[in-house]
Amino acid sequence: MASINRNYLKLPGSYLFSTIGKKVREYSQNNPQAKIIRLGIGDVTQPLCEEVISALHKAVDEMGSKDTFRGYAPDLGYDFLREAIVKTDYKSRGCDISADEIFVSDGAKCDCGNIQEIFDIDNVIAVCDPVYPVYVDSNVMAGRTGEYDPKTERFGRVVYMPCSAENDFVPEIPKEKADLIYLCYPNNPTGAVISKAKLQEWVDWANENDSIILYDAAYEAYISQPDVPHSIYECEGAKNCAIEFHSFSKTAGFTGLRLGYTVVPKELTCGGEKLWPLWARRHGTKYNGAPYIVQRAGEAVYSDAGLKQVKDQIAYYMENAKIILSGLESAGYNVSGGVNAPYIWLRTPGDMTSWEFFDMLLEKANVVGTPGSGFGPNGEHYFRLTAFGDREATIEAIDRIKKL
Amino acid sequence: MASINRNYLKLPGSYLFSTIGKKVREYSQNNPQAKIIRLGIGDVTQPLCEEVISALHKAVDEMGSKDTFRGYAPDLGYDFLREAIVKTDYKSRGCDISADEIFVSDGAKCDCGNIQEIFDIDNVIAVCDPVYPVYVDSNVMAGRTGEYDPKTERFGRVVYMPCSAENDFVPEIPKEKADLIYLCYPNNPTGAVISKAKLQEWVDWANENDSIILYDAAYEAYISQPDVPHSIYECEGAKNCAIEFHSFSKTAGFTGLRLGYTVVPKELTCGGEKLWPLWARRHGTKYNGAPYIVQRAGEAVYSDAGLKQVKDQIAYYMENAKIILSGLESAGYNVSGGVNAPYIWLRTPGDMTSWEFFDMLLEKANVVGTPGSGFGPNGEHYFRLTAFGDREATIEAIDRIKKL
Repeated sequence: MASINRNYLKLPGSYLFSTIGKKVREYSQNNPQAKIIRLGIGDVTQPLCEEVISALHKAVDEMGSKDTFRGYAPDLGYDFLREAIVKTDYKSRGCDISADEIFVSDGAKCDCGNIQEIFDIDNVIAVCDPVYPVYVDSNVMAGRTGEYDPKTERFGRVVYMPCSAENDFVPEIPKEKADLIYLCYPNNPTGAVISKAKLQEWVDWANENDSIILYDAAYEAYISQPDVPHSIYECEGAKNCAIEFHSFSKTAGFTGLRLGYTVVPKELTCGGEKLWPLWARRHGTKYNGAPYIVQRAGEAVYSDAGLKQVKDQIAYYMENAKIILSGLESAGYNVSGGVNAPYIWLRTPGDMTSWEFFDMLLEKANVVGTPGSGFGPNGEHYFRLTAFGDREATIEAIDRIKKL
Repeated sequence: MASINRNYLKLPGSYLFSTIGKKVREYSQNNPQAKIIRLGIGDVTQPLCEEVISALHKAVDEMGSKDTFRGYAPDLGYDFLREAIVKTDYKSRGCDISADEIFVSDGAKCDCGNIQEIFDIDNVIAVCDPVYPVYVDSNVMAGRTGEYDPKTERFGRVVYMPCSAENDFVPEIPKEKADLIYLCYPNNPTGAVISKAKLQEWVDWANENDSIILYDAAYEAYISQPDVPHSIYECEGAKNCAIEFHSFSKTAGFTGLRLGYTVVPKELTCGGEKLWPLWARRHGTKYNGAPYIVQRAGEAVYSDAGLKQVKDQIAYYMENAKIILSGLESAGYNVSGGVNAPYIWLRTPGDMTSWEFFDMLLEKANVVGTPGSGFGPNGEHYFRLTAFGDREATIEAIDRIKKL
């Protein structure tokens, strides 16, 4: 008799953004006149830049002609894209990463969710609290996290590292055993960043303890201040302890186009075994590459014109972030993030829970945000707004919130 | 200390197609003058049809304009595509499948590789021998298959179902316990098909034994004869025991565009638990949808013009299959497949092993095929050729083989 993977049943409730979607749909149906502004899910709103659009058209034409048609992509991605990535994202920052250490994929979410597969089931994971849900949920599904305690909202075999205003939303290095550490900077959901010195401490600790850091750099393009590392490989020794994830979703508005990449250094080992061949084997066995046309779109992001256009788009979103930050501050809210990240993290007023504030914002201001508690117990009494709306909607949303 | 998933180390050697690629690269480097014809890996060679190209251009333009830009796709796929799939692939064949039972993905390989995740680690899998390597390898990685015995080339906890000329390459129902049964018809690699009556026996058996059939229908568009089921849901009771995988790769030449879908019926249970919510949860947690533009390309395949253009393309490949079949038969080879499938399965001459025949074909005829033994011990002394080449190359390849 066939039986299911019962670890799935340990996942509490449904996925955060599904719940938000359901609430918003229900409210809309009951209030069809309401003009809802969405600053919740981190989805972009600006169209793909011209350089990307023109690369897509060109690649589509290639696919329509026998001489230039492309079938299966190389397992790990096309060289033209891997080389563009290395040049712009690594060499220019002094990081010694080579093209064959880049694994092109259809997005950082998939890679962050799948990476745990190449590790033993007995590894203990450590995550920030609050945290992007995919890290924990993918480990729950694999059976690595122990049982869920609804009282504490925590899994028994996970090390939760509290992030709060007290530690500038950068966790202390855990005292417990922790084998796989998920770090994400600039951070989702808090919008916080980590300094290079602090990240170096993590790298040193991981190397001393034979731990692996899974570093999610999906938001690095939003960094505006110096001394904030764009890549963990800016730290000495990181190639011996870290895997890094990148996304084109927020960098270039690819949420609907799907492209990302993961870096697994050739020399990175774990218990004496190299990780590169394992991840390569996974790619070769369970994945068939990102579409050729999308990889050409990714390449276009790294052209001179593409880099400029994408930078302008990020500047547009970061102007939104400024509007949200200053508007909320002037309305007396306690806010952080929004300077090196597209996320603004605010303390809910009074004793309101995150979901109470969500409901109030939805019902009284018709603005959708993301409840901080959806990212973990330490996110309770916090709320995330994103800078990905368009300008007028963002201004309107903040005006409405100020009037509450 | 972090540690790896040691199940990966049980995988024997490297992935079949990587090995072929390596051998061909080495031969080419040493013999730069050789005009190699590739009838090995099942990759298409004809460009995308006009209807698909035009849908792609249109969708790309939408992505470049603020009013029509699309970000994250719905978790399970866009309704326009799911409804087109249901209408053409199911309703028209009398199968009662609804749009919300369709999960759109970036290809059948990923889905076939990932589906095992929602099942318990204790399930025993059964596979045909020879078989598409992804089914076994993905279960090896998960730790479901026991140890590998290099002598028998078999894993201890896998039920291998021999397929040979004696049983028309359709396996007997196993006598051992088997919980998850992978079936693929039209078959890769043998090109064989299963009759509706025979498939109904499998469905009845699965329902009686609470087993789940994982049905790979990636090649159904190549079926040319009546009484060959295009979907397992043509059989009575299949919605209670089967998950089905479809691909646009071979149907419409999407190997480089990436699109597929999986059907999980709402009423399908396993040990009393519904499978639909589990697969939906996996999609929501570890996947972010196929690109909007690619989903529009998929929709175009189902338009009147698209269906015709794709049919013409399949006819082109099947004419190749005829050329290969008749050419090899006239040269005295023992061949099968190639009538309802793009694969021709031939017995190697004399006592040659599959790899010996591979090397001979590469060196003496500069033709690349796929060694049958790469698909399992019962594939030894067999060899797979594909109909996906272009016409002249296919004719030339068969001429060269005939001259050997």
